[in-house]
Amino acid sequence: MARATVRRRVVRLRGAEQGVRPDALAAEEPLEIRLGGAALTVTMRTPGDDFDLVAGFLVGEGVVHTTGQLAALRYCAGTDAEGANTYNVVDATVRGHAAPLSAHRNLLTTSACGLCGRDTVEAVRTHSRWPVAEDPLRVSPALLYALPDRLRAAQRAFDATGGLHAAALFTADGELLCVREDVGRHNAVDKVIGWALREGRLPLTGHVLLVSGRASFELTQKAALAGIPLLAAVSAPSSLAVELAEELGLTLVGFLRGESANVYTGAERVTAGQVPSDRP
Amino acid sequence: MARATVRRRVVRLRGAEQGVRPDALAAEEPLEIRLGGAALTVTMRTPGDDFDLVAGFLVGEGVVHTTGQLAALRYCAGTDAEGANTYNVVDATVRGHAAPLSAHRNLLTTSACGLCGRDTVEAVRTHSRWPVAEDPLRVSPALLYALPDRLRAAQRAFDATGGLHAAALFTADGELLCVREDVGRHNAVDKVIGWALREGRLPLTGHVLLVSGRASFELTQKAALAGIPLLAAVSAPSSLAVELAEELGLTLVGFLRGESANVYTGAERVTAGQVPSDRP
Repeated sequence: MARATVRRRVVRLRGAEQGVRPDALAAEEPLEIRLGGAALTVTMRTPGDDFDLVAGFLVGEGVVHTTGQLAALRYCAGTDAEGANTYNVVDATVRGHAAPLSAHRNLLTTSACGLCGRDTVEAVRTHSRWPVAEDPLRVSPALLYALPDRLRAAQRAFDATGGLHAAALFTADGELLCVREDVGRHNAVDKVIGWALREGRLPLTGHVLLVSGRASFELTQKAALAGIPLLAAVSAPSSLAVELAEELGLTLVGFLRGESANVYTGAERVTAGQVPSDRP
Repeated sequence: MARATVRRRVVRLRGAEQGVRPDALAAEEPLEIRLGGAALTVTMRTPGDDFDLVAGFLVGEGVVHTTGQLAALRYCAGTDAEGANTYNVVDATVRGHAAPLSAHRNLLTTSACGLCGRDTVEAVRTHSRWPVAEDPLRVSPALLYALPDRLRAAQRAFDATGGLHAAALFTADGELLCVREDVGRHNAVDKVIGWALREGRLPLTGHVLLVSGRASFELTQKAALAGIPLLAAVSAPSSLAVELAEELGLTLVGFLRGESANVYTGAERVTAGQVPSDRP
């Protein structure tokens, strides 16, 4: 268990040629997250760093804000046909959470949904405890440009499988603190933020979070609830990710590739001198 | 509403230069899916083709197998601060579903989870009504190689935003029947399958589904429950996607790029002559 990759033989087609060769696949397994014994959600994830994943998930849902609130994490029930523990169920115990989440409908990401993007943004704003907008972080474009290569250099499994998303946490000086990989991009971010929580580092004031793919509303929410003032993505952000970042005062950078990037919100943290207007 | 892209000004960094220019973002909004009036789930999606999305979602969860089972789809409650309908809540009415889904825990994707991948595969196998393994589809490598270009040519919004996943349905002759885009790759697939359901085309015997990204367990499940015998992805599959495809007799192709591809399961549908052994 807990292998990030799985070996398998594959039929390889190259033009009119065909052959069989070994291949490495990104491992995917279900993980059930419980809170105080009650099933909360199931996520399909790459095994490994499961406690970080659960801790980060709880931060992203507004259940836990500081290390002290997380009382315990443990693997529990969940055995396969041979009776062996599958290590695919984790139960979290928290302190001081008045209204424990107990069903999917209570998850922050969905409790305000079905209405419109603005209500969804408002729900996250209400649950955000850290004043991200006031974060004095400033980074140069040159520092930003250097981050993707550092992430890739630290990725352990991606080169082998091509199937894993990655997330990495950097200091304001560009020092890489933590990198995590997963078949789910949200899981990679949860693992990084859960690592930081368990290390007693929340809120992540003055830090930069880099993701290998796109920046969705959900990833922006996770960054905000961990107190991260700058989220950078190698690919495109969604409209609602940009709206949420603007509402919270979080800097959102997209298409960070080579010596270029787009800054969608909070450009004052990245640009030198006069900040161009961010609205038409 | 129902716009796939949103215009916005962005600060563009190119080396040491910076400027402001307009940019197009992939639209993202919550959609609440109800079944017989009861909230079932919320998905963050790109507005547009919402009825297809809901219909396809219900197919992927094993709630609906044929067109006749879907009695009605309608936009319902959900108004913004000004009282306008947000068109972000869709209620589905189905016929002949004995045990209606009513909460997240009952969704097929999660009801058997928290145990292990094998149980998850088994849950999908139990709910799969179409005998995908017996599908006589055969396609040449050359036909497969041609599909990604046809998908890209048909993508309307991707070139503008870089932020949308796409899914496309092809006949065995490579004719493109339907292409859909979304910020969520699972939503793009749901929209394609829901289109097919509403057109009376299920099961999709002899068809090919192509996705612009990776092939997860979830996407393989959706293909199987629609009766699609061949799922092709431009990027990597996960280990559990391959396990599920093998269990169901579905052909799974990954890394379909240019004149090359990897065939992970069901290679007899793609290769000519002797089929190389798929196991070590």
